[in-house]
Amino acid sequence: MISFESDYINGAHPKILKRLAEINDENLPGYGTDHYCKSAKARLCKAADMEDAEVEFLVGGTQTNAVVISTMLSDYEGVVAARTGHVSTHEAGAIEYTGHEVLGLPQEQGKIVPETLRSFLADFYADGNHEHMTFPGMVYISHPTEYGTLYTKEELTALSDICRDYDIPLYLDGARLGYGLMSRQSDLTLADIARLCDVFYIGGTKVGALCGEAVVFTKKNKPAHFMTSVKKRGALLAKGWLLGLQFDTLFTDDLYFEISRHAIEMAEEMKRILKSHGLNLLMETPTNQQFPVVENRLLERLQDHVAVSFWEKMDDAHTVVRLATSWSTKESDLAALDKVLSELIPN
Amino acid sequence: MISFESDYINGAHPKILKRLAEINDENLPGYGTDHYCKSAKARLCKAADMEDAEVEFLVGGTQTNAVVISTMLSDYEGVVAARTGHVSTHEAGAIEYTGHEVLGLPQEQGKIVPETLRSFLADFYADGNHEHMTFPGMVYISHPTEYGTLYTKEELTALSDICRDYDIPLYLDGARLGYGLMSRQSDLTLADIARLCDVFYIGGTKVGALCGEAVVFTKKNKPAHFMTSVKKRGALLAKGWLLGLQFDTLFTDDLYFEISRHAIEMAEEMKRILKSHGLNLLMETPTNQQFPVVENRLLERLQDHVAVSFWEKMDDAHTVVRLATSWSTKESDLAALDKVLSELIPN
Amino acid sequence: MISFESDYINGAHPKILKRLAEINDENLPGYGTDHYCKSAKARLCKAADMEDAEVEFLVGGTQTNAVVISTMLSDYEGVVAARTGHVSTHEAGAIEYTGHEVLGLPQEQGKIVPETLRSFLADFYADGNHEHMTFPGMVYISHPTEYGTLYTKEELTALSDICRDYDIPLYLDGARLGYGLMSRQSDLTLADIARLCDVFYIGGTKVGALCGEAVVFTKKNKPAHFMTSVKKRGALLAKGWLLGLQFDTLFTDDLYFEISRHAIEMAEEMKRILKSHGLNLLMETPTNQQFPVVENRLLERLQDHVAVSFWEKMDDAHTVVRLATSWSTKESDLAALDKVLSELIPN
Amino acid sequence: MISFESDYINGAHPKILKRLAEINDENLPGYGTDHYCKSAKARLCKAADMEDAEVEFLVGGTQTNAVVISTMLSDYEGVVAARTGHVSTHEAGAIEYTGHEVLGLPQEQGKIVPETLRSFLADFYADGNHEHMTFPGMVYISHPTEYGTLYTKEELTALSDICRDYDIPLYLDGARLGYGLMSRQSDLTLADIARLCDVFYIGGTKVGALCGEAVVFTKKNKPAHFMTSVKKRGALLAKGWLLGLQFDTLFTDDLYFEISRHAIEMAEEMKRILKSHGLNLLMETPTNQQFPVVENRLLERLQDHVAVSFWEKMDDAHTVVRLATSWSTKESDLAALDKVLSELIPN
Repeated sequence: MISFESDYINGAHPKILKRLAEINDENLPGYGTDHYCKSAKARLCKAADMEDAEVEFLVGGTQTNAVVISTMLSDYEGVVAARTGHVSTHEAGAIEYTGHEVLGLPQEQGKIVPETLRSFLADFYADGNHEHMTFPGMVYISHPTEYGTLYTKEELTALSDICRDYDIPLYLDGARLGYGLMSRQSDLTLADIARLCDVFYIGGTKVGALCGEAVVFTKKNKPAHFMTSVKKRGALLAKGWLLGLQFDTLFTDDLYFEISRHAIEMAEEMKRILKSHGLNLLMETPTNQQFPVVENRLLERLQDHVAVSFWEKMDDAHTVVRLATSWSTKESDLAALDKVLSELIPN
Repeated sequence: MISFESDYINGAHPKILKRLAEINDENLPGYGTDHYCKSAKARLCKAADMEDAEVEFLVGGTQTNAVVISTMLSDYEGVVAARTGHVSTHEAGAIEYTGHEVLGLPQEQGKIVPETLRSFLADFYADGNHEHMTFPGMVYISHPTEYGTLYTKEELTALSDICRDYDIPLYLDGARLGYGLMSRQSDLTLADIARLCDVFYIGGTKVGALCGEAVVFTKKNKPAHFMTSVKKRGALLAKGWLLGLQFDTLFTDDLYFEISRHAIEMAEEMKRILKSHGLNLLMETPTNQQFPVVENRLLERLQDHVAVSFWEKMDDAHTVVRLATSWSTKESDLAALDKVLSELIPN
Repeated sequence: MISFESDYINGAHPKILKRLAEINDENLPGYGTDHYCKSAKARLCKAADMEDAEVEFLVGGTQTNAVVISTMLSDYEGVVAARTGHVSTHEAGAIEYTGHEVLGLPQEQGKIVPETLRSFLADFYADGNHEHMTFPGMVYISHPTEYGTLYTKEELTALSDICRDYDIPLYLDGARLGYGLMSRQSDLTLADIARLCDVFYIGGTKVGALCGEAVVFTKKNKPAHFMTSVKKRGALLAKGWLLGLQFDTLFTDDLYFEISRHAIEMAEEMKRILKSHGLNLLMETPTNQQFPVVENRLLERLQDHVAVSFWEKMDDAHTVVRLATSWSTKESDLAALDKVLSELIPN
Repeated sequence: MISFESDYINGAHPKILKRLAEINDENLPGYGTDHYCKSAKARLCKAADMEDAEVEFLVGGTQTNAVVISTMLSDYEGVVAARTGHVSTHEAGAIEYTGHEVLGLPQEQGKIVPETLRSFLADFYADGNHEHMTFPGMVYISHPTEYGTLYTKEELTALSDICRDYDIPLYLDGARLGYGLMSRQSDLTLADIARLCDVFYIGGTKVGALCGEAVVFTKKNKPAHFMTSVKKRGALLAKGWLLGLQFDTLFTDDLYFEISRHAIEMAEEMKRILKSHGLNLLMETPTNQQFPVVENRLLERLQDHVAVSFWEKMDDAHTVVRLATSWSTKESDLAALDKVLSELIPN
């Protein structure tokens, strides 16, 4: 049985495990005050070409979204997001749990179209009754999106400009940021993202770490006493160095980028294989997630050999599934997929 | 200057003021434990033909929605509502403030189409990942809706059946319930609503009271220690009899229904006047709110004489506005409106 | 049966009811944007000798505490209060419901001793681990306290100085402020309170209004978009003028102070009566609440004739009860109390 | 420099790191649905002699307290805890963030005295006004307490009986449970705790794991859809097997107990060393934390060689500090401590 169920089906990059073993006996202070966190922060700032960014580590993606959004919004504000955004649909109400509304926008291929955002904001302030409504206090985007798509530099610049016009922060959820940056279609660098966004996070859980996300506040805008707010949300890790050490490793010798590029190569090969067997894709996605449309009876037989994720029902006879590659995908996994498909789909 | 700005521009029905004066010296215990609350509850049960319903009084509509929804939902649940529902858009995030998500559904003329609801619920449970999503734990509808439209008995029965199939409560926001019940197009009685819904409220603020809404739990489903939960939300009125006395008055000798019928008659006359001057209505609405489409320059001049509410921009040259009648609308107000329109719109 | 159960057992001062009737037909805009609210605000500012204070009206006391505290605290902060403070014990967790901790301090006769506060704050910042604890972000006091006691000008000045040293606001809960200001022992004026506190509220519910509390922000420190935050908490009254009109009436011709003085005179007479019958008081209180210690069998018989509030168990044979006078107490009520006690307690 | 600063200064037990490496390539489903979690749960049930307990894994202690308490309480309830309990003081308001009050009780050596609890509950229900107060909905204790002290079987039984009398759950915070169970003074087994408590957690972070706490619901009382509630709080780990695998390792061949016993032996030796140098202890504690009272100038010099935690100021000249042993303490660490003290404190 091979698995493309998600990009978090395996442990951590071996270099991370090796370093964990090496420092196991070192006495380290808690809560992220150790020298590995410090070193990792410096490396991330350098990678983002932003010397004085403020970096903090959190454990997982939903947690990171809830902490960042709720500590940056004012009481009367909510966060604007695509209706398909992770915060809108797949976090079990984690943002609402913090007392803030998610203001859903229509989307295209998982992305917020800049003009949609501009109209939404203009209409909000045009309405004389807007004091009775949640104020848009932040814009949330994911990059890559939940559909594996990417913003272009032009689009991100446009969103950034709109946010600055309205003086609200632009927040980029980079749970799979490595895969976005290494996509063959990406024209955005980490430095571009740091410059254009007010806050973003670099995902570790899905890109080589056991767990961990690195939040980057790019405009001297880290909320006051952030550590206390993190603790208050039950999100402060006692052995905070566990996160620092992992990011320190991932951002040494470009490991993060290298393993991300590998996942992209695997995804391109997967796309080729899927198409070679006549499978249609829901949309062309340039990152590590692929969404083939599979006839239901074929899907049933496929799942005896390959673990995939249900994505959505296409029609009564077809289902969209998701196959993800990652830093840990092996060429042999793809060869096995090719073989299974050959057997199940006769030419 | 005449005003059709809303249905809460005037004080209270004179009978209410009279009774307030009469009992002013009576010593009454606090927090709704007095005999006027008791009497009002009995009258409401009788009017709803439901002897043992549980009735509680709250001060305003948004408060009522937040209290009812948050005390009836389980931790992992949210409330399903039309995207145009009051809880979805015009309560400044009051439901989210309680830690619960509003799950927005597409709507038609402000109403949830039963089939839309059934599909939404079926899809939710079909998705293998639904443990990562907010569970639909209640269905919220407003009747009349924010657009002044009404559910038919057939539609409400269908929604009720679906809710029972999924074992979730159906909650009806009756901020303007009187105007719904007395509409010429209504085929629903108060008893029907009590039977078909699990909880609903009878609006007082917009129908003759200074303030106050009466929540009716129809299935022995009042949350345990409801008074404490109300207090915890800052919603417990010290002089609770102020609410009880008003509802006691409104439900004596059918006053609530009588004054609601008057508002409907005024609205029908208003509709006739608006049309007679060539104004189009956004939609045909059978209750006390009317939504004419007005050319912008005309609107500007109209507002020198008549207070109306901005509703939405129709196009660059036209605006939809809302005019509301109420229990306190006078025939002379309508005559004045007719006259103003005659002067502004030459034949 | 006479009642001294609380200071909110009767309706409203007749002048309020009269004005309600007078303006009943006037068309008024909603949500506190009317001219009565405006006029009331001006009168309150004048009474507080603080021309540019910001005033907002809310419906009840617990609501006011929750709204003020939660909109003024930062995320990582809690409110410091006496362990006997209303917010600490008798609001069913309304402050915690907003996500903030109440940091309880020891008290004396319901009051925070300035030195206790100073030590608490000094210790908090001395502890190297304070980032793991809720920051003290506001000091809450009630005046009169829940025990009917009063801060002296010296004490309030000391608390105010400490708060300024630590740059946190001092908030005074004035649910019974009139009775405090008119106490024979008070050396504080409304202007003193406005000067020494950063925010306070003037209670209406217990001092002649049907409902309503007036919050005064004295340092240009009203939270941004306060109306939206109030709406979000379900605390925005549609017919906001109901609150404005009442305060406008209470602060015309010193009505608020006059009726408060009456309650104090009644309380002093009550104190004399209680003592004349040999009853001990839990403590000497200079405002409208008196706390006699009553032998349990006597209490049982007393309650057949006089409604009082249970306060606390003194010992197995004695109970402390509360008797409150108010703006509506009549001399004949006190005469009746005297008579009942004469009959129950033979000389 | 040696460190006794806390019991989480080192990585993980080597057996855990070894297994992490072994399974690194295994494809595992997310969110705790893997076979390591399943196996760990079975082992924990066996260790607690409670076949059908429900076990869930969370990442850290504050998170665990917030999740367990907030999912088990009803809306109108709060949690009763010692005023020195971790939830009362050192979690930055994490419980209040969930909207629930912590009802603080007086304590002795960090423990709730059963009689104190019984009186508190009796008084609560005796007060006729208790509907205006937060209901006691759970009792929280820590074992060992924050002071390193332990409940006896008699005391825990008494607390358990009281909770059952009032039908509220007893929750035991076992962040350092291993050290409690292996204390020479403990007369409680894991099975006793499982039997007497309604829910408790077995701490991993401080007892050999990188991170992780195992919550045990002992009475078929796991909240419905617990996974969704965990997700909603941002506490659901994508690679949930990271927690399961660690507990599976710790509960294989009694590793958890063995390494806990080692920490206790080290603590007893530390106690002997501290006393041998004339240092007084704040109290006699039978677990892994020791609290010597140190003269301030000595402390300053000591901290050049030994990392300790500030605990509290004793008087102007003395400070209480905390030294913790753990599974990773080496005999050589203690020898070094002895040497340092010998040099700093001449006989």
